[in-house]
Amino acid sequence: MIAVHCGAGSHSTKHHVKYNKLCSKACRAGMEVIKAGGSALEAVRAAVIILENDPLSNAGYGSNLTVEGRVECDASVMNGDNLLFGGCGSVPKVKNPVALAYEICQKQLVEQPSGLVAPSLLVGSGALKHARSKSLKIVKNKDLVSPKAERQMRKYLGIVNVKLDTVGAVCVDSTGCVASACSSGGLLLKSPGRVGQAALYGCGVWADSWAKKSEDSVAVSTTGCGEHLVQTQLAKEISDDLKNCSCPVTALYSSMTNKFINSRYLHRIKEKNAGALAVHVSKTGEGTVLWGHSTESMSVGYMRISDAKPKTLISTFSSDERVKIGSTVTVGGNNFYLSESSSDASMELQA
Amino acid sequence: MIAVHCGAGSHSTKHHVKYNKLCSKACRAGMEVIKAGGSALEAVRAAVIILENDPLSNAGYGSNLTVEGRVECDASVMNGDNLLFGGCGSVPKVKNPVALAYEICQKQLVEQPSGLVAPSLLVGSGALKHARSKSLKIVKNKDLVSPKAERQMRKYLGIVNVKLDTVGAVCVDSTGCVASACSSGGLLLKSPGRVGQAALYGCGVWADSWAKKSEDSVAVSTTGCGEHLVQTQLAKEISDDLKNCSCPVTALYSSMTNKFINSRYLHRIKEKNAGALAVHVSKTGEGTVLWGHSTESMSVGYMRISDAKPKTLISTFSSDERVKIGSTVTVGGNNFYLSESSSDASMELQA
Repeated sequence: MIAVHCGAGSHSTKHHVKYNKLCSKACRAGMEVIKAGGSALEAVRAAVIILENDPLSNAGYGSNLTVEGRVECDASVMNGDNLLFGGCGSVPKVKNPVALAYEICQKQLVEQPSGLVAPSLLVGSGALKHARSKSLKIVKNKDLVSPKAERQMRKYLGIVNVKLDTVGAVCVDSTGCVASACSSGGLLLKSPGRVGQAALYGCGVWADSWAKKSEDSVAVSTTGCGEHLVQTQLAKEISDDLKNCSCPVTALYSSMTNKFINSRYLHRIKEKNAGALAVHVSKTGEGTVLWGHSTESMSVGYMRISDAKPKTLISTFSSDERVKIGSTVTVGGNNFYLSESSSDASMELQA
Repeated sequence: MIAVHCGAGSHSTKHHVKYNKLCSKACRAGMEVIKAGGSALEAVRAAVIILENDPLSNAGYGSNLTVEGRVECDASVMNGDNLLFGGCGSVPKVKNPVALAYEICQKQLVEQPSGLVAPSLLVGSGALKHARSKSLKIVKNKDLVSPKAERQMRKYLGIVNVKLDTVGAVCVDSTGCVASACSSGGLLLKSPGRVGQAALYGCGVWADSWAKKSEDSVAVSTTGCGEHLVQTQLAKEISDDLKNCSCPVTALYSSMTNKFINSRYLHRIKEKNAGALAVHVSKTGEGTVLWGHSTESMSVGYMRISDAKPKTLISTFSSDERVKIGSTVTVGGNNFYLSESSSDASMELQA
């Protein structure tokens, strides 16, 4: 199962088809990796690269601009099988920040010379240098600026239109290994150097399949207001709450309500904007893909290996619930069954 | 009570006096702030500025050099009263990174224009720009490079002498408000752009006195291998374990053992190096200043408002325990009593 999201925010109805198409394309890219024998971590990287490259999303090309009119990206990945994390923050000029996060994550597997420790988070110009050394694609700043991002920048003096289309992906392979990834251009008109949840351990992504024989496997990718997702360390908190729960969808609702909406760390905040995409697999192989958000809408797609095409949707609050945006959570999900016994790595569907 | 540390690592005996003197000076600087009516947050900033300015420590002037021979600093603060955090990572040229972290923390109290959110973490050149805008002292890179750091840099091809003299401070004022701070030059020969625990939420510092009428107040500052402190989010974990415990020193030992030495996130790591300085005040006003480390030694100082001079010490493993360095924890502490009733904000000593 691979699932992707294209942000929690306010997706205008006229663009719903575009968001769904993009999520569909990203799911297919991730699933291609799995079908070719790739890892869950490689699959979420492939899916997020598709999302980064599209100007619709606030990640990679088309990211929100800083107050100085530049693109600075955050991204991270986590591999549930070894609990390693790689993040990059406030990175200029790297075409696919999630690919850099992947390199940083994987480098930690390489034995370092005596006394040295491979970094888990690289930022700014140092991160750019690392990307160059890994031969990742480097572009000019203007090649990351989309016409839409420039238009939004020009609204500067009006009321800021908060674009929260951070992207992310979660994946579980046929053996129960999970991974997650996220990527973000950050808040519109952010300060140069600002790093949000998408780069930070515990905040933007979480994945844990390390003890999959004795515990549930969970992967989470969050989106929303970066500072608030950092303060609540929402990805890790949701993962903790989903582990060994009896009903993942109910657990996600409780977790986002208790750990975000009612969080003591956000007592000063009136409107609380967050979304989360997750995949949960119980020890017995029952799987759930699920999402929740406190924003007006959230764009989601998912695909099982046996599916001919991905399912996509824009999850929204019903019209009579609109007063609750920013103060309550709506959740959704779908079940699947992970068949470990099948030798061709396919999954059997249930529900 | 203010307490400071000058890192957990290996403090050679011939320098013990120097470390103790430096801790003493930092305690006095913090206590001056409290006596003048300043906040706990201002006190830890003042104490850490003293530690940063001394070449003995791996923070500010005299920081470890990156593989490119430059100084890039991390620092953060947390205010237990409002649970706000400010951090800066991989910052060049700022003389006192902890002062920048303080500014980032405090700016979050200022109402932002519609839709904008004040950053909680700034990195690299963007962080430097923010420091300039706040009129903090900016110096040239070479003014942050100490002769000792250069010598250690020249050892490049030999076995790396891991210098872990990250610094930190914790403070509780007479009303039970707590705050903590830390500052680090990072690991020797780190990659440019690398950010460690000292900049990151939940990892380098934690402070919580928000609900001091119903819960204990706790402040923690950690030191050691940054990546491992990030993976274990050790400052927050220790704080969680110290809250409402029956014996803080025992709780610190258990917490560092369970959440760091035996952490599932560090299952690949052989030698685990960490230190923590904490202050704990129960709802009834019983206070404990305490420290723990898995490294050979840790340099600590602390001072009560009624003390004529600070107490300083180098906590070490006993010689027959040396085999356990990196795989077990040694702890120490001292008690005090927080007298909320005293109108002159003085503390009464006990034990």
